[in-house]
Amino acid sequence: MEFIKDVLERIKPTEEEQKFLLQNAEDIISKIKLNLIGVDADPILVGSLAKGTNLKDTDVDIFIRFSTKYDRSYIEEKTIEIGKKILESTEINFAEHPYIKGKYRNILFEIVPCYRIEDSKRKITSVDRTPFHTEFVIRNLKEWQKDEVRLLKQFLKGLGIYGAEAKIEGFSGYLTELLIIKYGKFLNVLKNVIKWKKTTFISLNGEGTQFNSPLTFIDPTDPKRNVASAVSMKNYAIFIFSSREFLKNPKINFFFPNEYPEFDVEKIKSRGVGILHIKVTKPNVVDDILYTQIKKFSKLLEENLNDFGLTKIHFYVDDFVHLIIEAYHLDLPALEMHEGPPVWNKNSENFIKKWKGKAFNGPYIIDGKFYADIERKYKTIEDAIRKIISSASIGKDLDKYKEEIEFSRDPKTINRRELSKFLDYKFPWEL
Amino acid sequence: MEFIKDVLERIKPTEEEQKFLLQNAEDIISKIKLNLIGVDADPILVGSLAKGTNLKDTDVDIFIRFSTKYDRSYIEEKTIEIGKKILESTEINFAEHPYIKGKYRNILFEIVPCYRIEDSKRKITSVDRTPFHTEFVIRNLKEWQKDEVRLLKQFLKGLGIYGAEAKIEGFSGYLTELLIIKYGKFLNVLKNVIKWKKTTFISLNGEGTQFNSPLTFIDPTDPKRNVASAVSMKNYAIFIFSSREFLKNPKINFFFPNEYPEFDVEKIKSRGVGILHIKVTKPNVVDDILYTQIKKFSKLLEENLNDFGLTKIHFYVDDFVHLIIEAYHLDLPALEMHEGPPVWNKNSENFIKKWKGKAFNGPYIIDGKFYADIERKYKTIEDAIRKIISSASIGKDLDKYKEEIEFSRDPKTINRRELSKFLDYKFPWEL
Repeated sequence: MEFIKDVLERIKPTEEEQKFLLQNAEDIISKIKLNLIGVDADPILVGSLAKGTNLKDTDVDIFIRFSTKYDRSYIEEKTIEIGKKILESTEINFAEHPYIKGKYRNILFEIVPCYRIEDSKRKITSVDRTPFHTEFVIRNLKEWQKDEVRLLKQFLKGLGIYGAEAKIEGFSGYLTELLIIKYGKFLNVLKNVIKWKKTTFISLNGEGTQFNSPLTFIDPTDPKRNVASAVSMKNYAIFIFSSREFLKNPKINFFFPNEYPEFDVEKIKSRGVGILHIKVTKPNVVDDILYTQIKKFSKLLEENLNDFGLTKIHFYVDDFVHLIIEAYHLDLPALEMHEGPPVWNKNSENFIKKWKGKAFNGPYIIDGKFYADIERKYKTIEDAIRKIISSASIGKDLDKYKEEIEFSRDPKTINRRELSKFLDYKFPWEL
Repeated sequence: MEFIKDVLERIKPTEEEQKFLLQNAEDIISKIKLNLIGVDADPILVGSLAKGTNLKDTDVDIFIRFSTKYDRSYIEEKTIEIGKKILESTEINFAEHPYIKGKYRNILFEIVPCYRIEDSKRKITSVDRTPFHTEFVIRNLKEWQKDEVRLLKQFLKGLGIYGAEAKIEGFSGYLTELLIIKYGKFLNVLKNVIKWKKTTFISLNGEGTQFNSPLTFIDPTDPKRNVASAVSMKNYAIFIFSSREFLKNPKINFFFPNEYPEFDVEKIKSRGVGILHIKVTKPNVVDDILYTQIKKFSKLLEENLNDFGLTKIHFYVDDFVHLIIEAYHLDLPALEMHEGPPVWNKNSENFIKKWKGKAFNGPYIIDGKFYADIERKYKTIEDAIRKIISSASIGKDLDKYKEEIEFSRDPKTINRRELSKFLDYKFPWEL
């Protein structure tokens, strides 16, 4: 695997680059300190740069640890005030706390408030744990393993499964580091991953129990937490399969895949599959909230469009949220065979009352149940979707726009370049 | 319920008619005895005439009880030989034994061979129990209850669920008598039936256990036998619902329903539902075998045509066996989303090998499983059915003709008068 060297060359900062990053991080920390005179708080470098596992194009994370005597609004406002002073082109983002992002000498910094706590298990907000994670990795990751972390990160990036955010539902940086601590090196991680079954439980010290996720990796700083809780079943499976394929036939494409081709809607349509394009206004919320809601919407449709032979839902986001549905049928017969209660149920009388004289046929009995052939209420997939979303939430923010939802059966309205990035018909290394 | 009298008048033999039946049964028994001189065997009258629960148009059942020292072929041949001598226009039928049917003074007689056994539980063939059933009913049914049995029989006839044969899958004469013995009288049976739930267990003496049937009625002459084993879930449910409706609104139509109207195929087609007519040569076998096989065929299709949105299968028999299928779709898209094994399964490698480069799309991963979009093999319901029956039996005798099976999407080929008798869109009393 000669190409591993080339991969590292492309992703690992040079000594000079790393020095430049660290020097500027020090500058920022000094500047923050100057702004914290008289406040019981200290800024610290956390994240991949602190741990020495960063790739070339890294963000630099700086946390300000405040005494727990301050209330949340104080520490949030203070952090943003400082960030605005020392960073350029700042932007405020919202996770559990609001935090501030901005540039300093062309490096992207994130300054995040948190509480100074004694023990990772006693956190007040979830970010309070981050300094413990940083410390744990620094103490347990050997110098030579830092490049192994970088390789694993880039491998996951190449597969599109790096990052714990809702848009990705993949593997976080911390999880990547823990996998190297557990299995020693990049190739060993892969050799172990191919043995993973339907669920996998990993704990460095034997503490903790299986979570309701495909992958459980117990946080060594807090056995009540699963570091891998964001990893979706799909990404878990992609990691297993990709590891198997890489070990059989290693090549650099796994790390740096080519671009996806355009989505060939006509090809699918020509084979009789129905395509529906759904367009909703994009609400002005952060990605984590947006993608959580899109996935909720998508799941709601998946669970309720069985009659139409729904096979897949793809999505992409530009100025709008776009969902592309593939289904065997976009229209259903006017007659629906409607299932009622078993004959021996008391409420079966109501079914009879409701449909007798009104149904096309019946009520009649099949096996032990009543049925009636009735006029189908939602004969088109568009009508069915309107009905589904009218009586269920598709997420607080998307809900605001659900009445202006647009449908199109004409694939010309789809941005195929955008969509292709979200398609999964090919694995990245096959492109 | 004044009309109950009218019902009895129509179904109960007059004293003269009954005397005529009994007299001729005696004649036949004497004739059989003459033909059994030197043979260790005795003819006895069994069935509804013996029990005095017969309707006007009854068959007369006579069993010849042979000593167990004779082998089966001897007792069968002897019975048929005797039957041919004393009955006219005879016909040989096959149940567990072959037996002979024929006329004597315009009454239809059945003469059946069986073994003389000590105890119903020690039967050699299932008919050996019949004399015990006859004896049990004679001993336990009071004189006035005989008309109650007649009413219940006619009620079940009106519902189309009287008879334990495969064509009907309903309630036998013996079961009807036991229900009267259990609940006293016709109306009381109905009042109890409306309390039946998903399954019902009845035992006159507390012996026996629930069978895997909706209705279990333990045979008082053999606790290992369920007298109601033939009753299908559908007929069980029809009995419950009809009893409820009759008690709410009693009318003579329950006993003597009007004729079914013609099946309105166009009405169904006009609502977008697909109709397929299947025609198979009728094999030359007795009804019990034929209908068992038709139901097997029907079940096989029901279980394998989900993709076509199969809603119902009706059937009727004339010179051919006809199945009429209703389905939401008679054609499916050329593209099929084909489900493979989970990624962590060993055999998933074979799925990849099989479809890579051959599938329209994929193999790709959804949740933890592989899928591939492939060319659908059976795009029409006809092709799908040909495939299903090519790899599965539809019954030994139907199998012989399955390659010459004919399909038609044109409802004009359906005999609507014949079909309507087998349709269940309306209950008989609603006609």
